[in-house]
Amino acid sequence: MSDIERKHTNARMSKIVRHGDLVYLCGQTASGGTNASADITAQTQETLARVDALLTEAGSDRARILSATLYLRDINDFAAMNAVWESWIAPGTAPARTTVEARLASESLLFEVTVIAALA
Amino acid sequence: MSDIERKHTNARMSKIVRHGDLVYLCGQTASGGTNASADITAQTQETLARVDALLTEAGSDRARILSATLYLRDINDFAAMNAVWESWIAPGTAPARTTVEARLASESLLFEVTVIAALA
Amino acid sequence: MSDIERKHTNARMSKIVRHGDLVYLCGQTASGGTNASADITAQTQETLARVDALLTEAGSDRARILSATLYLRDINDFAAMNAVWESWIAPGTAPARTTVEARLASESLLFEVTVIAALA
Repeated sequence: MSDIERKHTNARMSKIVRHGDLVYLCGQTASGGTNASADITAQTQETLARVDALLTEAGSDRARILSATLYLRDINDFAAMNAVWESWIAPGTAPARTTVEARLASESLLFEVTVIAALA
Repeated sequence: MSDIERKHTNARMSKIVRHGDLVYLCGQTASGGTNASADITAQTQETLARVDALLTEAGSDRARILSATLYLRDINDFAAMNAVWESWIAPGTAPARTTVEARLASESLLFEVTVIAALA
Repeated sequence: MSDIERKHTNARMSKIVRHGDLVYLCGQTASGGTNASADITAQTQETLARVDALLTEAGSDRARILSATLYLRDINDFAAMNAVWESWIAPGTAPARTTVEARLASESLLFEVTVIAALA
């Protein structure tokens, strides 16, 4: 039995990788298919809901995120993204965070986040 | 008592997150307020001084950085940033490092670095 | 004796950093010198071969990668890069992965990858 546990694994990536007392999630975005025209607020909300679901499945939760790397398609969306982000983070539990601008895998995607979290 | 220790935590992020034997710092930059017109040399110096201060507070130091991700507003600043970086790193202690170009949160920022370090 | 083991360390970075049960590699690319005109397929192949060599030297392997961050000089190379990536990953072992566009240290570089892997 491996010391590495992977979930939702396809040929390219695993959505969840557990090892030791940490979980690594693949970069989360809004759904390109169903939400391609959504604005930054809606995409951030959808993305963070996906993070919640994956962390719960992995045996962690948003209050146990250690490190988060945030990518914005347009850095001018910084304030709008942050409004959603800050309402999502419970007081006293904010992770170490880095935010930069980058084009993402699909042209319609405005936001992506990669997190490392502690297992419960 | 939590197994995760956060310092300098606001609604958005923590500057320091300790868990296990690692510390995660939020992305460090020069101060947009006081150093907005500083060149890449001055911004790199100021940024690395901030990393030093946070690592010391966290119970680590620059010789214990495991991984560093460096973002340059303009990749043409690579050599000038490296000159400061290399004088900052003690011989034999350089971390695994990745450097890419990315626009940062404020237009005046030229350099940002995210580090993971081992606690002493 | 340090709890941190570094290999291929120069003034700027270490290609391999081992700590605890993890290994951190510096960002891997094709060789700017010998492969400057290579296309995305060749550069991805060369880069992943370098990752293999470093992971083997570190006491890990590609099936033990936990997290991978991929940078493409041009996000339009996404499909061509993925074709190489997916043939490289053994079934059931794909890491958590994030892919974004970013300019890299040399203008000729089209692909860079940073990995964290579990030691065997």
